[in-house]
Amino acid sequence: MALSVYERDDILAMEKRYRAAFVNSLSGFKSANLLGTSDSNRQTNLCIVSSAFHLGANPALMGVIIRPDTVPRDTLENIRETGVYTLNHVQKEMVVAAHQTSARYPHGVSEFEQVGLTPLWRERINAPYVQEAAIRLGLILREEHTMAINGTHLLVGEIIEAHVPDSCISHDGFVDIEQAGTVALSGLDSYHCTDRVGRLSYAKPDSMPEWLD
Amino acid sequence: MALSVYERDDILAMEKRYRAAFVNSLSGFKSANLLGTSDSNRQTNLCIVSSAFHLGANPALMGVIIRPDTVPRDTLENIRETGVYTLNHVQKEMVVAAHQTSARYPHGVSEFEQVGLTPLWRERINAPYVQEAAIRLGLILREEHTMAINGTHLLVGEIIEAHVPDSCISHDGFVDIEQAGTVALSGLDSYHCTDRVGRLSYAKPDSMPEWLD
Repeated sequence: MALSVYERDDILAMEKRYRAAFVNSLSGFKSANLLGTSDSNRQTNLCIVSSAFHLGANPALMGVIIRPDTVPRDTLENIRETGVYTLNHVQKEMVVAAHQTSARYPHGVSEFEQVGLTPLWRERINAPYVQEAAIRLGLILREEHTMAINGTHLLVGEIIEAHVPDSCISHDGFVDIEQAGTVALSGLDSYHCTDRVGRLSYAKPDSMPEWLD
Repeated sequence: MALSVYERDDILAMEKRYRAAFVNSLSGFKSANLLGTSDSNRQTNLCIVSSAFHLGANPALMGVIIRPDTVPRDTLENIRETGVYTLNHVQKEMVVAAHQTSARYPHGVSEFEQVGLTPLWRERINAPYVQEAAIRLGLILREEHTMAINGTHLLVGEIIEAHVPDSCISHDGFVDIEQAGTVALSGLDSYHCTDRVGRLSYAKPDSMPEWLD
């Protein structure tokens, strides 16, 4: 394949939207989650995030990146007010509705109603889950870091509730998110179903890994 | 689908490896990259990471999570010594070799040789790229954060070189990583090819998004 090398200055010189599409593609595939929040009056907010990532299993921690300039500030304000939020896996049937949550609706408008998704309330957490999602997580904010270089926020949350379909859990704890219908994202706007290559055994120095299934 | 709710205490009570597999599955699909480093004597190190994520386009920033207790410390020491590292997309043909880099080889052994991948050196950066990878990034360490809650490190790097196949770049800057053969990861050990659903237009409050292709 013919290949081009883009240096730092080439990237800095790109037109703004071109650069956003280009750089957003380079990290690889991303998770697709709907981030649900509420203010203390149960005014709900929902936005798609491609930045949720694993941070640790014990305790069960997840990171999510919030850019105050692109995501509605409601989300960040709600999380700081209530200390909680939900993450809900985006499935193929929900892709258009999920994507539409990134539109800049006015403050006071709930994305749930606008895009046609259903808030699901549970006792333990003052933030709405997405009823249509097969896998849902409720999180408590544990830590916050601000990147000095661009002002982006990293929120570290602990999972206090995980809703998982019984049929997707393997004997060893692995959750088959492909079977649950979860999609992957690439760039800013490209949605992908997945097709499993396989699971590989734990790697050891003296032998090559084997396919588990 | 029958669904179970796992609360915080249920997760904390899980057997260690079961919990690791379970929690690692919950964030959604992950990127699959080979992280290449070198010490000042050009002793190379290579390890698969599922934690690289987009942090900003201007400047072009990427985050990667390093857990000192599970990833060989060589990687972190090399990055701190040289200030640079590479990220190289894992493609389907490289999955077994890429996974094998997670084996705990002794200090002084290069994973490149052990798993059969080829280091590619460039002038601007004292870290090896993976020649077999279709998409390769060279990064300079800009910032480091340590999570108070579990000691995990977030490295923030700026992309100073991006190698991208010409055939994968769209007119608007989007890089088609599916066409490049990049795979996605889920859990600790599950590899997935992707099948594009489509790209959606920029979301606006007064209309629903349209499929771009």
